[in-house]
Amino acid sequence: MKTFLQEAKASSRVLSTLSGAKKNSALRAMAQGLRDDKKSILQANALDMEAATQNNLTKALKDRLFLDESRVEAMAIAIEEIAALKEPIGRVLDGWYADAGFKIEKVSVPIGVIGVIYESRPNVTADVGALCFKSGNVAILKGGKEAEHSNRAIASVLQNVLEKHELPKGAIALLPDSSREGVAELIKQDSYVDLIVPRGGEALIKYVSTHATVPVVKHDKGLCHTYIDKDADFDKAIAVVINAKCRRNGICGALETLLIDEVIATELLPRIKEAYDLHNTEIRGCAKTQNIIDVHTASEADYATEYLDNILTIKVVEGVEGAIAHIEMYGSQHSEAIITENYTTAEYFLNTIDAACVYLNASTQFTDGGEFGFGAEVGISTNKLHARGPMGVSELTTYKYKIYGNGETR
Amino acid sequence: MKTFLQEAKASSRVLSTLSGAKKNSALRAMAQGLRDDKKSILQANALDMEAATQNNLTKALKDRLFLDESRVEAMAIAIEEIAALKEPIGRVLDGWYADAGFKIEKVSVPIGVIGVIYESRPNVTADVGALCFKSGNVAILKGGKEAEHSNRAIASVLQNVLEKHELPKGAIALLPDSSREGVAELIKQDSYVDLIVPRGGEALIKYVSTHATVPVVKHDKGLCHTYIDKDADFDKAIAVVINAKCRRNGICGALETLLIDEVIATELLPRIKEAYDLHNTEIRGCAKTQNIIDVHTASEADYATEYLDNILTIKVVEGVEGAIAHIEMYGSQHSEAIITENYTTAEYFLNTIDAACVYLNASTQFTDGGEFGFGAEVGISTNKLHARGPMGVSELTTYKYKIYGNGETR
Repeated sequence: MKTFLQEAKASSRVLSTLSGAKKNSALRAMAQGLRDDKKSILQANALDMEAATQNNLTKALKDRLFLDESRVEAMAIAIEEIAALKEPIGRVLDGWYADAGFKIEKVSVPIGVIGVIYESRPNVTADVGALCFKSGNVAILKGGKEAEHSNRAIASVLQNVLEKHELPKGAIALLPDSSREGVAELIKQDSYVDLIVPRGGEALIKYVSTHATVPVVKHDKGLCHTYIDKDADFDKAIAVVINAKCRRNGICGALETLLIDEVIATELLPRIKEAYDLHNTEIRGCAKTQNIIDVHTASEADYATEYLDNILTIKVVEGVEGAIAHIEMYGSQHSEAIITENYTTAEYFLNTIDAACVYLNASTQFTDGGEFGFGAEVGISTNKLHARGPMGVSELTTYKYKIYGNGETR
Repeated sequence: MKTFLQEAKASSRVLSTLSGAKKNSALRAMAQGLRDDKKSILQANALDMEAATQNNLTKALKDRLFLDESRVEAMAIAIEEIAALKEPIGRVLDGWYADAGFKIEKVSVPIGVIGVIYESRPNVTADVGALCFKSGNVAILKGGKEAEHSNRAIASVLQNVLEKHELPKGAIALLPDSSREGVAELIKQDSYVDLIVPRGGEALIKYVSTHATVPVVKHDKGLCHTYIDKDADFDKAIAVVINAKCRRNGICGALETLLIDEVIATELLPRIKEAYDLHNTEIRGCAKTQNIIDVHTASEADYATEYLDNILTIKVVEGVEGAIAHIEMYGSQHSEAIITENYTTAEYFLNTIDAACVYLNASTQFTDGGEFGFGAEVGISTNKLHARGPMGVSELTTYKYKIYGNGETR
């Protein structure tokens, strides 16, 4: 482990001063490499799929794991898109002359060595490896055990390209010891590792946050709300809340609890139920909701649950203040929305709610690096420090101050 | 503790939407409050000084602890300067239209509840309390035991002003249980506390980093180097390195190890020794240095020591590569400097060295929020994430995305 981490640190030094042209040419070769080696990648994936069947993995998990030609092609295209992104390193973020006379330049630099812990989807290996490389960071990847063969095949394609380009192979590395003990050791290596990004279930994230001495940027749950205000445009409201729940209910930006202003509940709830019925969404409502539409009972526990399923809680609240109070109690500071045409109510909600993304009249499912225009993403940060919301290449950088003096003394 | 933290969280909600005008008027009243109550502050400080004498505190520590009228006035002025800073909250940091049609605004927001752990100097209570308040954050302050009476007197002045302005008194709070156990509990309260800033000795910082579940921005040691290149202007070089060591040797930006290019060592070292002799600086040199000037022997341990004293290590290195290799081995990524007139060498050093502040031809003692133009500072971050180098009000903010839609669905 120690030799591995020392190599990672040494590779990080090489990457930090690599030109954009060199990085992008390697990235394009990686995309081509995935295409050229798709046979070996699909063979490796077949082994993982076989094990998945033997281990009775759910259909949803198996779908996440599965690769075919078009999914490998999608990985290649994602890497080409990352290559096409603006160079994130060496950007002058700010600059000024200090009173003492020297010039201060604040410039973006790589973070260094980044450990990413994730599950299931093998494309994350390619995406995160490429994003870290583009931003001059060494990636130490720890994927799920269920995707072991696929991840190894993908990483080996990327590493072969690095070698051919005379770049350190260890710049995109799989954690050699992928056991629980390996992770436990990795997250304490603060002399070698600069950042840990855990993507996955609550248990993993809690474990990492509690035991890591390396700084952590969490990718935790999204318990997202949409509040329909009395001044909402009802057609927009219905379209947005249906999309926020039903487009895909398994992602962190999916709607879990719909809040509705008591003033419009009687008029709007029947229409909302009708729309959700078309999607077979199970609705659990508060007592006031149940007085208006025929739905299951929402318990206190429902308000605190990220279903990631075709289930929705509905609660009638007393205006925007009621909505804000509920969100402050149960929200996970991920993505929250208000539907209203009222300027003052909208700004009050947007300014008061403490979350990475606060939406006015739009679906919370838009919380995504691609939709934000960041290209691919490492994930959605639920941290308040360093990076919040979708994390793209810019969020994989930090900064330093370059000070240009002429003999100044203090 | 729990009630205290719940109050802190509630106060944070109030502060987050407070207008700049209201914050600044309260800050100016705090400055005036310190002036009006200087008698009670000085009386409290006298108790601390008495205890310091009884406990045989060093002269340096007692000087840090001591307050008189002019030091209280300096605290008041510092708060007025913080009041005069540009409003840090609600700044639109970036903004664009996404492909889906909605507008995204990235705006600065407070971090929330910030715990700051520090030692000795009572003015930190006023400075950090005011900086957190200006940036809309609740401050939970844990000062050194030796400054207990002074800190309590200062905090009570600030809290009285908050009360008179009908603001939550707990917005600037002292940690109720200031024992080791109190700190141990505080750093694990990630549901209430958003950031811990430990300022102090290595043991404290190691303890906090290891046990905290709350994110930590460290204010760790500065083992700073200055490298004199063969293309240096010798007069600038001598002026800068004398200042970097001797202006104040107890600060984290002070020079600890001087690196000199072997090509110029024979010519320049005698002049350097002569200059340091005027400041009675003890020099410890490598073997090559000892061949040129008569100094003590530098051991391996010396290279790794932050003296914070009038002692300097000198090492002769093989050009800029030798300097970089040494700094990578022993530096603490705080402040590093090169003295050279050569453009290419300078840029190579500035780009390659991984540190918060990298200087060309200037003293590393400039690493300071005031010198950078940030006004007062919470300290000098040695973290790579979130904030690096001097931490002023901007570094006490995070951001959120406000998304202005018109019924967009994904």
